[in-house]
Amino acid sequence: MTQSHGYAARSATAPLAPFKFTRRELHDHDVHVDIQFCGVCHSDIHFVRNEWGNAVYPVVPGHEIVGRVKAVGSAVRKFKPGDLVGVGVIVDSDRTCPSCRAREEQYCEGGVTLTYGARDKYGDLTQGGYSNNIVTDEHFVHSVSPKLNPAGVAPLLCAGITTYSPLRHWKVGPNRKVGIIGLGGLGHMALKFAHSFGAHVVQFTTSESKIADAKRLGADEVVISKDATAMKKQANSFDFIIDTVSAPHDIDPYLEALKRDSTYVQVGLPEKPPVIDPGNLLFKRRSWSGSIIGGMAETQEMLDYCAAKNITADVEVIPIQQINEAFERVVKADVKYRFTIDMSSLGA
Amino acid sequence: MTQSHGYAARSATAPLAPFKFTRRELHDHDVHVDIQFCGVCHSDIHFVRNEWGNAVYPVVPGHEIVGRVKAVGSAVRKFKPGDLVGVGVIVDSDRTCPSCRAREEQYCEGGVTLTYGARDKYGDLTQGGYSNNIVTDEHFVHSVSPKLNPAGVAPLLCAGITTYSPLRHWKVGPNRKVGIIGLGGLGHMALKFAHSFGAHVVQFTTSESKIADAKRLGADEVVISKDATAMKKQANSFDFIIDTVSAPHDIDPYLEALKRDSTYVQVGLPEKPPVIDPGNLLFKRRSWSGSIIGGMAETQEMLDYCAAKNITADVEVIPIQQINEAFERVVKADVKYRFTIDMSSLGA
Repeated sequence: MTQSHGYAARSATAPLAPFKFTRRELHDHDVHVDIQFCGVCHSDIHFVRNEWGNAVYPVVPGHEIVGRVKAVGSAVRKFKPGDLVGVGVIVDSDRTCPSCRAREEQYCEGGVTLTYGARDKYGDLTQGGYSNNIVTDEHFVHSVSPKLNPAGVAPLLCAGITTYSPLRHWKVGPNRKVGIIGLGGLGHMALKFAHSFGAHVVQFTTSESKIADAKRLGADEVVISKDATAMKKQANSFDFIIDTVSAPHDIDPYLEALKRDSTYVQVGLPEKPPVIDPGNLLFKRRSWSGSIIGGMAETQEMLDYCAAKNITADVEVIPIQQINEAFERVVKADVKYRFTIDMSSLGA
Repeated sequence: MTQSHGYAARSATAPLAPFKFTRRELHDHDVHVDIQFCGVCHSDIHFVRNEWGNAVYPVVPGHEIVGRVKAVGSAVRKFKPGDLVGVGVIVDSDRTCPSCRAREEQYCEGGVTLTYGARDKYGDLTQGGYSNNIVTDEHFVHSVSPKLNPAGVAPLLCAGITTYSPLRHWKVGPNRKVGIIGLGGLGHMALKFAHSFGAHVVQFTTSESKIADAKRLGADEVVISKDATAMKKQANSFDFIIDTVSAPHDIDPYLEALKRDSTYVQVGLPEKPPVIDPGNLLFKRRSWSGSIIGGMAETQEMLDYCAAKNITADVEVIPIQQINEAFERVVKADVKYRFTIDMSSLGA
């Protein structure tokens, strides 16, 4: 067994607090990672507070993990002790289904194993990255370039790949007009990537206070989505829109902004099912779609791309002792644009 | 002016009754068609009864028109008197927008001119095919093969192209598993086309009484959609599903039946906006889309394909005097599978 400690929630209403636990022993294909940084994703809060109804306790959240390899199993060839690596949202899949064979493990027909709050193939409860270490299969571990600030790399493992993957899948690039809804953890990464891919990028936001920051991060235009006249001006002009906002909001004005045959992609799971006017799909053959994270090969591709282009998340680094306050600030969208926990604060 | 007569509704509650009216004179690019057959589309009923809130009266409905050219304008080269032709759902578009230039006139950014109930570019109210003749621009007139039964050709101009176009757009063919929801006017055409294109076709229906007919029309399998167990068995197996049902129904079980990266297309405009679980899009990167009729070139392609493959709609031919009774039967889905009005019944 591997001795671990971190911060866990014991119930939907309890604050996160110190917690000692064990992880599985190192199997042949496993990598033991000593965690340096872990990003704070809104999903962590949804899960911990049982807002999705699937929580198990105690739970150590965290699925934006960067650390150093401490040890590897006997069959591991990809990594060696000392390597800088990342672990994201999933730590296993069935490896045999059509999606896994297509290197889209995130859509595994047999079901993925989430990094926390799930049972792994040995029957153990998985625990996440708000902790000193993690033991997991090498297939779900990625190389991280030492050129980048590791605190800013951590959020790439969820917020980064969640936006990179659909932008690549729907071929966002030069001569394409792309809309980004929301400028938070996911939105600011979508903005950086879409800009880096050479698209004409329009940031949609409800807040005038975000205009300057959106432009700094790469937006060619900023549209205040509460301004109906400004929204109407965008009609039939977008090749692609990515929606990073899970709070309830009206989707129809964005559908109307899409060109014929274009796609609106939801990457945040909406808190309530949105209701749209299906005429907005039919009368321009538009599509409403969704996407989650990315495959393991694509996650590595994204990390390599970020190293080549010097892209990381904008982060506010906190010690683990501030995690409960950070949760409150995430809920209020009071962070630019992601918290990352410095795990050295956890102590021995 | 062109003298015309047909059957019109004078209000949302009035039955269709004989009506004399005038159509525009023959302009340079116009074709005068003497109508032989006109299909009865559920849209005719929605419009006439103002169920979409956009009715104008009096209205002569009908947009599944087959007839013979009587005269052509001075600039018309495509047609000559005596030719068998068809006219469908739209009779004009702006011809200059991106969709028109892409030969997708049905999605015209400037707005299409509907075959009835719209203002044409001369300011005249358009009137449809429940009448003895129509005068319209040659671009919106199609050649019809004399090899086919013209009564069965008429519904191809709406029900046919509405299903042919999305099946082609989403590349339905051999080694693809395709689902068809609903076995009515649209559904039976979708079934014939998907079968003809070489796909493995599954007909979804609520009614066990339709199993034999679905198989006769080309279904490889029939699934009773009320049977939750049968529906679950279809999970993650479809490459494409086309939904021809506009009455309210649950979409989620069909989304769950789609493979990763596959598309669910709505071709009937739902009476009420459906509510779906967006998780069914996100967790398999599925798309929900919609489609209307087809472009003019594609409509001709479809008619030529039907002539080559001997495909027509299954029709019940009625005299115009039975139109009000036919409307009632369409509402009750009591027709296999389309009414076509024999316009010779109209008299002189």
